[in-house]
Amino acid sequence: MTRKGLLFVLSGPSGAGKGTVCKALIETKFPMKVSVSVTTRAPRTGEQEGVNYFFRSVEQFQEMIAADELLEWAKVYDNFYGTPRSFVDEQLENGNDVLLEIDIQGAMQVKQRFPDGVFIFLIPPSQAELESRILGRGSETQESFNKRTSAARQELQKMREYDYVVVNDVIDEACRRIRCIIEAEHLQVKRNLHLVQSW
Amino acid sequence: MTRKGLLFVLSGPSGAGKGTVCKALIETKFPMKVSVSVTTRAPRTGEQEGVNYFFRSVEQFQEMIAADELLEWAKVYDNFYGTPRSFVDEQLENGNDVLLEIDIQGAMQVKQRFPDGVFIFLIPPSQAELESRILGRGSETQESFNKRTSAARQELQKMREYDYVVVNDVIDEACRRIRCIIEAEHLQVKRNLHLVQSW
Repeated sequence: MTRKGLLFVLSGPSGAGKGTVCKALIETKFPMKVSVSVTTRAPRTGEQEGVNYFFRSVEQFQEMIAADELLEWAKVYDNFYGTPRSFVDEQLENGNDVLLEIDIQGAMQVKQRFPDGVFIFLIPPSQAELESRILGRGSETQESFNKRTSAARQELQKMREYDYVVVNDVIDEACRRIRCIIEAEHLQVKRNLHLVQSW
Repeated sequence: MTRKGLLFVLSGPSGAGKGTVCKALIETKFPMKVSVSVTTRAPRTGEQEGVNYFFRSVEQFQEMIAADELLEWAKVYDNFYGTPRSFVDEQLENGNDVLLEIDIQGAMQVKQRFPDGVFIFLIPPSQAELESRILGRGSETQESFNKRTSAARQELQKMREYDYVVVNDVIDEACRRIRCIIEAEHLQVKRNLHLVQSW
């Protein structure tokens, strides 16, 4: 079956485990190109250009924005982060699936440009687990904890904008569910009308 | 994750292997209720009431049609075949998935009543394989062979009315794809809005 490349966006509230699940997915050798982000922050020890990030200056980053070369971007504290459009376009044209692991704000930007993308919302198994993960990330005060949990709760309301929801209870199970979603999307009739055309 | 029962319809042209795939799916112990058809034909040796078919008289069958108790029905040669609505309704209400294995005409009738059903179109791996399977079923003359292949080709055009298409190249692979479709359908956001409502 000839496969057309599809764009999958893995997103969800902080504490859902997007990064861990994305890493586990890559390690299962699933045939999927993972987008590499552009950032203006300095490389950390061991980080490689084009592998972990594309490292650019603020001026270069702003030129990319101006030239509409980013599918989505955000400023987090003092650094810019973004998804280069060219990589995604090239991979899809070559018939490769692409996976973007981004936050909800970024996903909503991508949806505007790629309404045909497949949007997967990753959530923790329970509210208690979400709160415990937020605590684990170090909320110093009750106030900062409340602020973070309230933000996460607001983010959860964005679920309606997505196509699929995957509960991240056990990482292997979450990966298996995501692989099923990828497989099923490729089996949709609208993506396979060519199959019987010549019969 | 609380599962709501979903209706899956496995259908496709003659020679696609619907019966074989359906049997293989059941044998993998996939949690799925398979609908039992009603027929007016006489039971064959070993066939059990309520297991292979519900055996009814022509009068009883016609009463079921009149009382709108059949989701779909057809007359094949001298016998009537149909899908009882009550079984499907009960299973879905109890949260069980239901699988119907029916021909294309029947599937189109079910779609009118269950637009939320998930419609899977099973096809043979190639036109040559389709023709060889039609030959294998015993087309006595060139004329009857031509008639059957032409009918199958027309049936293939109904693919557009379905949600998914599965190529039946290797039975285990076809079953795996169908299980993925079932899993992915349950992960659709629209079926899981309750998940984070109380958070």
